[in-house]
Amino acid sequence: MCDTCGCEHGETAHEAAESRRIPVIQKLLSANDQAALENRQHLKAHGITAFNLMSSPGAGKTTLLLATIAALREQTRLGVIEGDTASQVDAEIIAATGTPVVQINTGGGCHLDAPMVHSALHALPLDALDVLFIENVGNLICPVAFDLGQNYKVALLSVPEGHDKPYKYPAIFEAVDVVVVTKADLMPYLDFDLEKFRALVHGLNDTAPVLTLSAKTGEGVADWLAWLGERFV
Amino acid sequence: MCDTCGCEHGETAHEAAESRRIPVIQKLLSANDQAALENRQHLKAHGITAFNLMSSPGAGKTTLLLATIAALREQTRLGVIEGDTASQVDAEIIAATGTPVVQINTGGGCHLDAPMVHSALHALPLDALDVLFIENVGNLICPVAFDLGQNYKVALLSVPEGHDKPYKYPAIFEAVDVVVVTKADLMPYLDFDLEKFRALVHGLNDTAPVLTLSAKTGEGVADWLAWLGERFV
Repeated sequence: MCDTCGCEHGETAHEAAESRRIPVIQKLLSANDQAALENRQHLKAHGITAFNLMSSPGAGKTTLLLATIAALREQTRLGVIEGDTASQVDAEIIAATGTPVVQINTGGGCHLDAPMVHSALHALPLDALDVLFIENVGNLICPVAFDLGQNYKVALLSVPEGHDKPYKYPAIFEAVDVVVVTKADLMPYLDFDLEKFRALVHGLNDTAPVLTLSAKTGEGVADWLAWLGERFV
Repeated sequence: MCDTCGCEHGETAHEAAESRRIPVIQKLLSANDQAALENRQHLKAHGITAFNLMSSPGAGKTTLLLATIAALREQTRLGVIEGDTASQVDAEIIAATGTPVVQINTGGGCHLDAPMVHSALHALPLDALDVLFIENVGNLICPVAFDLGQNYKVALLSVPEGHDKPYKYPAIFEAVDVVVVTKADLMPYLDFDLEKFRALVHGLNDTAPVLTLSAKTGEGVADWLAWLGERFV
């Protein structure tokens, strides 16, 4: 654990011990938690349910958001925060649907943090939203260490990434409220063992359901929408 | 840029300014560079050429290594360092080929650093190796900021991740000596625009070739082996 940013960073034991003696480090950590607390209160005051979507790059977060927006936009007022190290290509895709969206560029940073989300909240029409999706930076490791003030944490894992990922990246699967297997339409072309994946996830986290879907074909999207719908306030 | 670990972390400008006033921070950064320098000297003294393989989780680093080992093991003495946040599943796969391998578990850390690689070098039979592959932790962001003492940096990008990734993760494409597009056998099932991807990469880095291959079918692997072979000392 990196004491400065809260990420799970490798440091030698000696260096870590040295850095723990610097008081400002603790202040930085609690700055994120304090901002997350404020975000949570802010969202609650506006009656908004917020979901923090985390995955590897290219696992299909934006594509799942597009399918979700298409299905829910008539009955639910949705907003989106897009996180990327650079560019606003995802925000442009979301904006084309007419959904309020804010792009956060982290300037190379490997995760969103609560102060970034706080700034983004002030750029959204909160009184006109029921649900907020926060698409985190594509990274299966660092984002999980940062509370953004969301109500629920979602992990996406795409079929091409392989069913062995809970062995190598256990922290994200331990931390989330639901695991969504995406790109299920590619199952016939790959050796993804869904039952093995489920068993690995449930060995780490026995409460998170494992949903399977293809935003491209629509297969399984109804299960995701049902899971979401049960959580809207 | 996080001044403690060198990762590209998001910090508010104020916090970043504060952390830059702490002298130990610079010491930690130079500790990695010092260890990388020593690794480089150590490898050179043993006549070893080292490649640092970086990609998202599940992009096919281990599968490409298996194909490379199968092709080269008769004429070249290969060794492997496997980096993962947890588990030794990849090292077991490599060890089954009879190739000397060391697993580094970062304990949740998002990248390898030079001191970790230094420790691993001492666990390998360096006098019996010509080439070393270092498979970094699956992460398209953080590993690029850490010099490991390698001779060449390799980025893998799998077809299912999408051709838009250089927009969102420019740093890795700027930094590497070659970009390898993996899982080319999935091209027929996905909307991956190879020419667009090439143009985006070359907009960031006009010297790195973009190779395309499928370790599953063998398509394009010869180009990768040729690129490698030109770099062995």
